Amino acid sequence: MKQKKFILPESEIPTAWFNIQAVMPNKPLPILHPGTRQPLSAEDLYPIFCEECSNQELDTTNEWIPIPEEVREQYAAYRCTPLVRAYDLEKALGTPAHIYFKNESVSPAGSHKLNSALAQAYYAKKQGITNITTETGAGQWGGALSYAAKKFGIDCAVYMVKASYNQKPYRRSIMQTFDAAITPSPSMSTRAGKDILTVNPNDQGSLGTAISEAIELAVSTPNCKYTLGSVLNHVCLHQTVIGLEAEKQMAMAGEYPDIVIACFGGGSNFSGIAYPFMRHNIQDGKKTRFIAAEPSSCPKLTRGKFEYDFGDEAGLTPLLPMYTIGHTFKPATIHAGGLRYHGAGVIMSQLMKDGFMEAQDYDQTETFKAGVLFARTEGIIPAPESCHAIAATIKEALKCKETGEEKVILFNLSGHGFVDMAAYDSYFSGEMTNYELTDEELAKYQASADALNQ
Amino acid sequence: MKQKKFILPESEIPTAWFNIQAVMPNKPLPILHPGTRQPLSAEDLYPIFCEECSNQELDTTNEWIPIPEEVREQYAAYRCTPLVRAYDLEKALGTPAHIYFKNESVSPAGSHKLNSALAQAYYAKKQGITNITTETGAGQWGGALSYAAKKFGIDCAVYMVKASYNQKPYRRSIMQTFDAAITPSPSMSTRAGKDILTVNPNDQGSLGTAISEAIELAVSTPNCKYTLGSVLNHVCLHQTVIGLEAEKQMAMAGEYPDIVIACFGGGSNFSGIAYPFMRHNIQDGKKTRFIAAEPSSCPKLTRGKFEYDFGDEAGLTPLLPMYTIGHTFKPATIHAGGLRYHGAGVIMSQLMKDGFMEAQDYDQTETFKAGVLFARTEGIIPAPESCHAIAATIKEALKCKETGEEKVILFNLSGHGFVDMAAYDSYFSGEMTNYELTDEELAKYQASADALNQ
Repeated sequence: MKQKKFILPESEIPTAWFNIQAVMPNKPLPILHPGTRQPLSAEDLYPIFCEECSNQELDTTNEWIPIPEEVREQYAAYRCTPLVRAYDLEKALGTPAHIYFKNESVSPAGSHKLNSALAQAYYAKKQGITNITTETGAGQWGGALSYAAKKFGIDCAVYMVKASYNQKPYRRSIMQTFDAAITPSPSMSTRAGKDILTVNPNDQGSLGTAISEAIELAVSTPNCKYTLGSVLNHVCLHQTVIGLEAEKQMAMAGEYPDIVIACFGGGSNFSGIAYPFMRHNIQDGKKTRFIAAEPSSCPKLTRGKFEYDFGDEAGLTPLLPMYTIGHTFKPATIHAGGLRYHGAGVIMSQLMKDGFMEAQDYDQTETFKAGVLFARTEGIIPAPESCHAIAATIKEALKCKETGEEKVILFNLSGHGFVDMAAYDSYFSGEMTNYELTDEELAKYQASADALNQ
Repeated sequence: MKQKKFILPESEIPTAWFNIQAVMPNKPLPILHPGTRQPLSAEDLYPIFCEECSNQELDTTNEWIPIPEEVREQYAAYRCTPLVRAYDLEKALGTPAHIYFKNESVSPAGSHKLNSALAQAYYAKKQGITNITTETGAGQWGGALSYAAKKFGIDCAVYMVKASYNQKPYRRSIMQTFDAAITPSPSMSTRAGKDILTVNPNDQGSLGTAISEAIELAVSTPNCKYTLGSVLNHVCLHQTVIGLEAEKQMAMAGEYPDIVIACFGGGSNFSGIAYPFMRHNIQDGKKTRFIAAEPSSCPKLTRGKFEYDFGDEAGLTPLLPMYTIGHTFKPATIHAGGLRYHGAGVIMSQLMKDGFMEAQDYDQTETFKAGVLFARTEGIIPAPESCHAIAATIKEALKCKETGEEKVILFNLSGHGFVDMAAYDSYFSGEMTNYELTDEELAKYQASADALNQ
């Protein structure tokens, strides 16, 4: 019998996260104070984030950051996650490529998000914080943080993008099951939310707005810190357990990836699977390609600009050097709610600029077509976000079919789609629409970032 | 770090199923032809079921039935499933008991049902069958069979209990994703369905009715066979991979269960985890207790009668010797749709009669209370059916707290609840109702079975 899954015991859960900042040829540009335009120190971030996360955010020297034993213990509920050879997908495509996927959908929250949620909740608890707050788009991050907060005995308040709140009521129920307080965003509970609803009472929200609300709550509430599920360096750092495990598991399979693929929203699952392999491109002369798969409706990497921009809609965050389509971006209500963010993380943006990774964009229907083929061959119904990675994998595997190359493709299955079946319904009914950002729309949004760079 | 999960490699996927019929002190009573009252042979079952499944159904001699390599290969997509020590649930309860659970929720279909679906689809394909049909209550079995049929390249038609069809639209979407045809039952597509809808156009269906419809379709369609997800001996046989793996995994943990618990609908997940351990009670003098947890609204084991009854509402099946509350039973629309069946499997019924197992019944709200505690401690949101096993586990663990006994409790987490969040919503809103069958109702339904035994 051909081996299908490559499994590591709990003892192989990584003991340190890999900090790519320490080995990047060009370090990321500094994060700037929006008023003074001066680089921020870790201490400047303390009012918003936990101290440990703030320190990790700006750590460009330590290549390995030890994972606290308390976090590893919680990782053990689902890690190490399986690496799986997608024999039946290969067969359906008739490709000579070897396709592997890292199955992050097995986590309690159903996605990779828990890898950072547990770390952030732990550091908050350790610092004596009693409340954490955050935003969530698709609900994956909110569900993960709710669970992590519960495990470490702190309270959790989540602002959920209104479009997702209505599209995905079960994500809300999941957060409630894990005992979190959930508010649809924009809401009247913050200045940022009120300002938007006053202009447009029917505003369906965005990740940028929800971030503004969560930060406002954090800075105005005693003993409360803000947490983020993607984009930031410390979040991506925590996700590197994915790639570190995958590296060992690929070795068990006797292979090394020629191509590593992940969907791309802010970059958390991408960086998680990519960085540990990318370090061998940087340090050991490996030539692996890294492909970020993003939606055509939110093409920050394929059509955005590398410049300073706010991380949120209201302009409450520091200025981040990143590929962005502008912080005023209003995303279309695609089902991959987790990929509707206007910017790419600071590290990924620098890596993109320096040619270490590439990006491809996909229409919504194309990604669901890919997801259905994956479900029918490999059995797992993927999250709409993950469908983007599958679409890119199929594209690359079909190229191999043309050329006859036996390339090794590894993609990250960031989450399952059990809570996204309404999206599949929409696909099967033929009612699903594609949204492509027009040049005019892009120019309008981009102007909001350009204005910060003059 | 304490070991949380006990993991077996794919090479340890069992190579044979355990057939408890071969070692039972009292063999099950024969299945009877409803007209002649003569025992049925395997050949008599061929018009309805695959030949191999029919043979397994009546096999009382072979203790071990080899698992075809093609089925093991498909098992490898998710097996061996983890055995998990529920440290945090123990801590929350303050119990000295050691609680373990076998996590069958990791299968592509989200439950243990795939263990038999893959076997039945394989045997159908091998026999040259092109279409299989079935019924589904909660949708777990239908989803599993849809996937299994797709994997072996045959078509699948599912009759879904109307109450579940409406309560759980996403279960339907899952089956559609796996390419099955789904019809709400009762339907106008069969004689059995028409007869019911003519009397009550608003009938919400039952497993019994859906079985009638699926069998009718199977026997009236060329090259089509019927499959069942529970109750029958060959289904329970296929499920024994659960307990066979768990036995090895408990040994890895250095323990042996004092109590084994599973929820109980027709008996498939119960027998799967119980039989392999029960054989040591029968053969080696072990004293493990086996507890079936059923809903108070469908108390076939705790309040039913051991007698011959039909397996379906319309009376199309052979007569089965079983604990039953009567085949005319109309179940309340509880959320644990998979536990609404009127009878217990033939083998379990004999084992129950002979004192090898016991049963407990639980109110709906009590099971969800247990499920929420489990989610908040162990992270996995359980299926409403599995919540019954958790309620029983908590009850036994709290007894240990009183007595100070360090008992080892093993329960089967038959599936996850990601597609059942509407049920959790109902629980949190306080709108969830309990249904207890009155003595009058019970007597009325039971009369339909009694009439067959005079």
